[in-house]
Amino acid sequence: MRNIFLSIVSLLAVHLADAQSADSAYIKRISDEILTNGKAYENLRYLTKQIGGRLAGSPGMVKAEQWGLRMMQQSGADQAWLQECMVPHWIRGGTDIGQATYTVPATGTRNGIVKSSVLDIVALGNSAGTGTKGISGEVLLVNSFDELEAKKDQVKGKIVFYNYKFNPTYIHTFLAYRDAGQYRGQGPSRAAKYGAKAVIVRSMSHSTDNIPHTGATRYDTAFQKIPAVAIGLKDADWMSEQLQKTKLQVTLKTKGQFLPDTIGHNVIGELKGTEFPEQIITVGGHLDSWDNCEGAHDDGAGCVQAIEIIRAFKAIGYQPKHTIRFVLFANEENGLRGGSKYAEEAAAKGEKHILAIESDAGGFTPRALGFSGSDEQYQHFLSWKDLIAPYGCSELVKGGGGSDIGPLNRLLKTPTASLNPDSQRYFDIHHARSDVFEAVNKRELELGAVNMAALIYLVDKYGL
Amino acid sequence: MRNIFLSIVSLLAVHLADAQSADSAYIKRISDEILTNGKAYENLRYLTKQIGGRLAGSPGMVKAEQWGLRMMQQSGADQAWLQECMVPHWIRGGTDIGQATYTVPATGTRNGIVKSSVLDIVALGNSAGTGTKGISGEVLLVNSFDELEAKKDQVKGKIVFYNYKFNPTYIHTFLAYRDAGQYRGQGPSRAAKYGAKAVIVRSMSHSTDNIPHTGATRYDTAFQKIPAVAIGLKDADWMSEQLQKTKLQVTLKTKGQFLPDTIGHNVIGELKGTEFPEQIITVGGHLDSWDNCEGAHDDGAGCVQAIEIIRAFKAIGYQPKHTIRFVLFANEENGLRGGSKYAEEAAAKGEKHILAIESDAGGFTPRALGFSGSDEQYQHFLSWKDLIAPYGCSELVKGGGGSDIGPLNRLLKTPTASLNPDSQRYFDIHHARSDVFEAVNKRELELGAVNMAALIYLVDKYGL
Repeated sequence: MRNIFLSIVSLLAVHLADAQSADSAYIKRISDEILTNGKAYENLRYLTKQIGGRLAGSPGMVKAEQWGLRMMQQSGADQAWLQECMVPHWIRGGTDIGQATYTVPATGTRNGIVKSSVLDIVALGNSAGTGTKGISGEVLLVNSFDELEAKKDQVKGKIVFYNYKFNPTYIHTFLAYRDAGQYRGQGPSRAAKYGAKAVIVRSMSHSTDNIPHTGATRYDTAFQKIPAVAIGLKDADWMSEQLQKTKLQVTLKTKGQFLPDTIGHNVIGELKGTEFPEQIITVGGHLDSWDNCEGAHDDGAGCVQAIEIIRAFKAIGYQPKHTIRFVLFANEENGLRGGSKYAEEAAAKGEKHILAIESDAGGFTPRALGFSGSDEQYQHFLSWKDLIAPYGCSELVKGGGGSDIGPLNRLLKTPTASLNPDSQRYFDIHHARSDVFEAVNKRELELGAVNMAALIYLVDKYGL
Repeated sequence: MRNIFLSIVSLLAVHLADAQSADSAYIKRISDEILTNGKAYENLRYLTKQIGGRLAGSPGMVKAEQWGLRMMQQSGADQAWLQECMVPHWIRGGTDIGQATYTVPATGTRNGIVKSSVLDIVALGNSAGTGTKGISGEVLLVNSFDELEAKKDQVKGKIVFYNYKFNPTYIHTFLAYRDAGQYRGQGPSRAAKYGAKAVIVRSMSHSTDNIPHTGATRYDTAFQKIPAVAIGLKDADWMSEQLQKTKLQVTLKTKGQFLPDTIGHNVIGELKGTEFPEQIITVGGHLDSWDNCEGAHDDGAGCVQAIEIIRAFKAIGYQPKHTIRFVLFANEENGLRGGSKYAEEAAAKGEKHILAIESDAGGFTPRALGFSGSDEQYQHFLSWKDLIAPYGCSELVKGGGGSDIGPLNRLLKTPTASLNPDSQRYFDIHHARSDVFEAVNKRELELGAVNMAALIYLVDKYGL
C-alpha cells in the first residue's frame, strides 16, 4: 500500500515536473519571439512621433484611436472594435507663461533693483485659466498643508506656493508620489478656501532638470476654482531660497478650460477562446496621455505591450482557451471614463472576467507582478514564481491592479494584476515634456510584454 | 527543563529579532543619507565632463588619479594614497576612418555605378594601425567562426567581416556578451591565420543606434597583428545586405599603436578598523575607461559609488570594526595591471582580506549581489537577504566578483562579491561614445552605493 502511495506521489511529481518544464519551454518561446521579432518599440515610435500627445477630446486622441484599431487588426486580433464613451475635454488653450519679479539690494542706495525671472511652468490638468490679463500676486511659501493651516490668515490675495518635497528616501518611488500627490490634487482648493488667488506646486519628481510636471487637480466645488500650475525643481528651490530673503511677485498666464464632453473610445482587440470563449482575460494600458508630452512611458508603453502580446501569440500560433481582450483605455488621465465604461458594459452584458492586467507604470525593466484576488487565487499566482522570475519579475507580490481596471474589480469582483517595472526613472519624466520616445529602452519595454504574456499564458492554461 | 529551554530559545529569537531590527534601522540610515545627501552623481559629472576618457597612459588617466585622491580625502578617508603600477600605453593616434565602395546596377548599361558610403568605425583597443595609406580590400562576410573555417580558402587578402549577432534571447545581457565577445577578442588573429589583411567586427550591442563599440582585442603572437575595427549595428546590417548582392571594397585608416609602458596608479582610500584593523574589506571599481567615451557607466559609476560609501559612512559617524579599503583600480580595460598590483602587494605584505566587492556592470538599478566563497560563507551571505532586498538587490546569488578583484581571489583566496545591476541598457552604451554622464540616472547610481554599503556594514559587523 505504502509503495503504491509512493508510486502515485512520485508519478504526480514527475507529471508536475514535466508540466513545469513544458510551461518553461513555452514561456521561453514567447520571450524569444518578443525579444527577437518584437514590434513594440517601433509601434511606440509611431505613436509618440507621428501622433504625440493625445489627451481626451484632442485631435491626437482621435488619431490614436484609429491607429490602435489598425494595430489590433494588423497584429492578428480575431476581432477589433471601438467602444464609445463620453470623455471630458479639457484644453490648455495655449502656452502657459510664468514670471517672477523680485528685488535685490543695490549698493549705495536704499532701494533695491527690480529683477525678473521667467518661470518654466505648466498648468495643472483640469485647472482653470487666469484670463488673458493673467494673475499677479505675492507668493506665500508653504512647505506642507500643516504650514498652510498655520499661515491661513496670510493666504488671502496671495499665490500659494506648495514646496512639498518628493521624498527621496522611499525606494519605491510610487510611495513618494502618493505622499506628494495630494498637493497637486487638493492643493488649489485648500488654498482657495483661505482666499488664495492661484497656486504653484513643486513638481512631483526626482528629476535633475527643471522641467515642470503636470497632472490632474481636483477642485472642491465649495471653493473658487483658482488657477494652478507646477514648476520644476530648480525653479522651486530658487523660489524657496528667494523667499527667505525677499518678496516675490509672480504673474501667471494660463488658458485652461473645459469644453463640452465629447466622444472618445476604448480600443479593443480580442483573441477568441477555444474552450471557454465566454471567460475573459483583459490586458491593457491607457491610450490617452497628457497634452504636454509624447506619453511614451505614460502610457504608450502599456499600449504597445498589449499589442505586442497579440502579435507574439499569433506569431507562435498560440490558441488561448479563454478569450483574451487587449484594451487601450480612453481617458485615464483626467476622468477614467474609459475604464468605467468598459466595466459597466461588461456588467450590463453579464460577462465573466477571470483576470485583468494593467501596465501603467512605464516601460521600464520589469521587477514584479502585483496581484489582488482571493487568498486561494494568490497562492495559485505565487506557484508560478519560478516560471516567471527568469524574465525579470522576480517578485510576485500582493496588491496589483490599475486605474483602468479598478472599475472591473469594483463592479464584477474581477481579480486584478499589474506589471510593476523598476520605478527609479518614472517620476523623472512622468507628466512632463521629457516623457518622450527616447526615454524608453527597447529591451526593457519588450520584457514588460514578455512577463505579462507569461502570466496570461499560465492563467489561460490553469485558470485562477 | 523544557520551560527553561523554551525560554532560552525565545530569548534568542527576541535577541535575533532585535538585532535584525537594529540592522534594518541602520541600513535605512545609510540609505537615507545616500538618497538625500548623495554626491555620487555630481562627482560622476565632474569625472566625465571635466576629465572624460581616461585610458591607461593617457593624460586623462593622470588627471583622474589626482581627482580620485582628492575625492578620497574630501570624503573623509582616514588615509588615501596612490599605489604605483606600470600600465600599457595604447593610443588610438587620431580619428578612425572607414569607407565602403560598391557598385549598383545602372539601367541601360552593362557597367554599374560606383557608390561609396562612410562607415562609422572605431578601432578595437590594443589593435595595430593600418599605416597612413590605410588598408583596402574586398570584404568577406562570415557570420561565425564555423563559417570562417568553411571559407578559409577565400580569406587571403580579404577584410574579414564578423557579423556575429548579439543574441537578444538572453535575459541577462552579459551572457550575450560572453557569447559574442570572442569575435572581438580572437577574431583578428583567427582571420590573420588564413591571410586576412584586416578585420571588421559587428559591435557587441543591443543598441538601436549605429554607434560602434570598441574593447580590447588579443592578438595571438603566432600570426600577423592585423588592424581590427568595430562597426555599429546599422552599418553591419547594411554591409551584410549589400554583400548578398554585390561586392564591397572597404578602406580602413586607423593609427593604433603601443607606446612604452608607463606609470599608472591605483587610488586607495581607507577607513581604519577599530577592532580588527588588520582585516580588510575592499570595495571599488576601475578608474580607467576607453578613450572614445566618458566612461560614465564603465566604470565611473563604480568609482563614485565607492567614494560615496566613504562619504556616507563618515556623515553618519559609522566606525567600522574592520578596515575598509576603497579602491579605484588602474587599467582594467586593457591590461588589468591595477588589480594585479593590488593583489600582489597584499600578498607580499601578508595582508588579510576578508571580502572584496566590485561594481563594474554600470550604474543601473541594483537587482542582485553575487558572491563567491565557501558554502558556509555563502549561507551566511544568504541570511542577509531580507535586510538588503528592500534596497533593490532582491536576489543574492552564487557567483560574484570582478576583473579587478579576481587577482585577490586567486592569490589570497579572498571571497569576492559583485553588484549586479539591471543589465538591459548596459550593452547599448558599453565601450561606445554613448557611454556618457547623461546615460546615468541619479537614483539608480545612488542605490548601487546603498546596496554595497549595506553588505559592507553586515560583513563588518558579523564577519563572513
